[in-house]
Amino acid sequence: MSVLAPVAVAPARLTPVEPYLELSVPTAVRRLRALVAALPGTAIHYAVKANPDPVLLRALHAAGSRFDVASPAEVVAAIEAGARPEDLVYSNPVKRRADVAYAAALGVRVFVVDSPEETVKVAAAAPGAAVLCRLVTSGEGSDWPLSRKYGCSTGEAVHILSAAAALGLQPAGVSFHVGSQQRDPEAWGPPIAAAARVFAALRADGLAPWLLDLGGGFPARLADDGADRCPPLAAYGEAIDRHLTRAFGADRPQTLVEPGRAVVAEAGVLHCRVVATLVRGGTRWVFLDAGVFTGLVETLDEAIRYPLRTERDGGPTGPCVLAGPTCDSADVLYEQTMVDLPLDLVEGDRVWLESAGAYTTCYSTVGFNGFPPLTTVRRG
Amino acid sequence: MSVLAPVAVAPARLTPVEPYLELSVPTAVRRLRALVAALPGTAIHYAVKANPDPVLLRALHAAGSRFDVASPAEVVAAIEAGARPEDLVYSNPVKRRADVAYAAALGVRVFVVDSPEETVKVAAAAPGAAVLCRLVTSGEGSDWPLSRKYGCSTGEAVHILSAAAALGLQPAGVSFHVGSQQRDPEAWGPPIAAAARVFAALRADGLAPWLLDLGGGFPARLADDGADRCPPLAAYGEAIDRHLTRAFGADRPQTLVEPGRAVVAEAGVLHCRVVATLVRGGTRWVFLDAGVFTGLVETLDEAIRYPLRTERDGGPTGPCVLAGPTCDSADVLYEQTMVDLPLDLVEGDRVWLESAGAYTTCYSTVGFNGFPPLTTVRRG
Repeated sequence: MSVLAPVAVAPARLTPVEPYLELSVPTAVRRLRALVAALPGTAIHYAVKANPDPVLLRALHAAGSRFDVASPAEVVAAIEAGARPEDLVYSNPVKRRADVAYAAALGVRVFVVDSPEETVKVAAAAPGAAVLCRLVTSGEGSDWPLSRKYGCSTGEAVHILSAAAALGLQPAGVSFHVGSQQRDPEAWGPPIAAAARVFAALRADGLAPWLLDLGGGFPARLADDGADRCPPLAAYGEAIDRHLTRAFGADRPQTLVEPGRAVVAEAGVLHCRVVATLVRGGTRWVFLDAGVFTGLVETLDEAIRYPLRTERDGGPTGPCVLAGPTCDSADVLYEQTMVDLPLDLVEGDRVWLESAGAYTTCYSTVGFNGFPPLTTVRRG
Repeated sequence: MSVLAPVAVAPARLTPVEPYLELSVPTAVRRLRALVAALPGTAIHYAVKANPDPVLLRALHAAGSRFDVASPAEVVAAIEAGARPEDLVYSNPVKRRADVAYAAALGVRVFVVDSPEETVKVAAAAPGAAVLCRLVTSGEGSDWPLSRKYGCSTGEAVHILSAAAALGLQPAGVSFHVGSQQRDPEAWGPPIAAAARVFAALRADGLAPWLLDLGGGFPARLADDGADRCPPLAAYGEAIDRHLTRAFGADRPQTLVEPGRAVVAEAGVLHCRVVATLVRGGTRWVFLDAGVFTGLVETLDEAIRYPLRTERDGGPTGPCVLAGPTCDSADVLYEQTMVDLPLDLVEGDRVWLESAGAYTTCYSTVGFNGFPPLTTVRRG
């Protein structure tokens, strides 16, 4: 037999090395369509930061999505996926001047600001661009609140957008973000009402704002999420429509949303294995070969709780602490609120973290402890 | 003039693009020598995880350092730097079986364990290897405590090391870690005393442990650190020597330490620039182009406080919140305890984070928000 004869490899052995993220692009497209259906008349701008996989971006573009970008690299990724630069929203409210100029040179026309200083910067680096002014929100009701760092008051927004007009920018309107993984559809009510006050004040000043960015925050199904904890997307669409009608009446502006997690989280399953099961001081610890530094940063403070499946599911379960593989003590996923896993789980068993398509591969470290970054294996 | 004529470039323009880590390998070697001087008779095993830069590893090896490793990639990095595999300590207490076998095949002989399960695993994957059993410590006095995830009691350690001997492993001794950036030299006292109790019990059972791994935790000079907050390395050496004499008398085992931060932190300066200075609700915010996701993860919970310098230093200063460049609200470095920066600091100004050589480049994400990982520029 020649040494060049083909080698037969059993398909079952063609499993990628764990840990890896299995990404179903069709699932993400299905979720995009569900958002389109739930939010008729509202443009969907997928938030590239949630998962910038290039095949995913191309599929979402082909399915009609626009994009929300936060950096020059994300502008390029969106354009390479087929997006028109004028359909992008550059939503990072505080940007390097050179980054604004770079994006503007590529044709980006809509930038988010939330301060007079940033407005002056955009006017200089992207003359004539359209600006959305971001309002502060409470973040209440969300798993990953965003309230501290960005946003201004309605009074400040009126001042900023009027100043923008005086600087030759187009005062497009208002943006806000109710916090990631927002559980309460009614959370959109107060900021929509606040936005309407800004629009009214600007119109009274003779300006003509036309665009309202409703942000992201639409949830994915996480651990222990019943209908009460994760309302259907239609409930969000209904609440937003009702609040828009109440706040704007017949003068409703164009609207857009920036979903990231809601599109891609449920499209991803993180495949990993048990490194060890131990008992420490009477508590069971399960160590996985994926952890905080290989993509699961959102478990910090145990904010995001991934649904777990194992190859031992079906038998009796018990509580355990879940830890990652690095020798860093911060690499613990769930400890304050332990997870329930099969009692017969042992070293080498496969574990799947579901709804893990968002904020995992991109949050992975370059290789802390010598463990490689989380890779993506696409399915479908 | 030919188009091939050399182009004159002013040296001042050859500045790398911010942000980047400037790494002084000679400073790291100097810090290594200071540790050698402070801990006579104790082997220094540099913790590769703190900064695995290959030029740094080669220089530390040439200066006499051994290495502490946590994964197959770190074993390879240490060997490529010139280390003998038998001089490595594989200190990650919970390891993939395949990783233990890989390291053993490369010649690694010393593995840390802290459970019966891991001892059985090492006996199977690295037959005849030497094992150190890690004791739990309180972590008190450290900026980045490590107490939750690893370590067992002295009673468990005696059991584990006796079982190791029965499994054909060499019960080498004990390891512990007093927590990273440990401020109190006396923190080594209780675990050294505990280690001595383990050694005595093993010797009473006819075993002959010979090695005590005193861990890391030696501090680097951080913000606001006077001599009280960051005692000189000699104070650590003196305290450890005193505790070893008290606990072990004439039967002192071989000793080693695993410094990471103490060697490389002060060898690194993170160069970045101000993206914006804003006022939010009466509070000044300074946004930098480096943040939590580009290497500064240790600012989470504001644990590690980097000394700051700016090109405006010298004039009046005031408090501000310090934030990173991504549009993630978690990308805030210091807010609960604000930092003091010059009042005339403006966009584009250069800012230097000192003592930033440890746990920065390796903690950097692969590119969250499209911002590239932190790069290293070596000096000296």
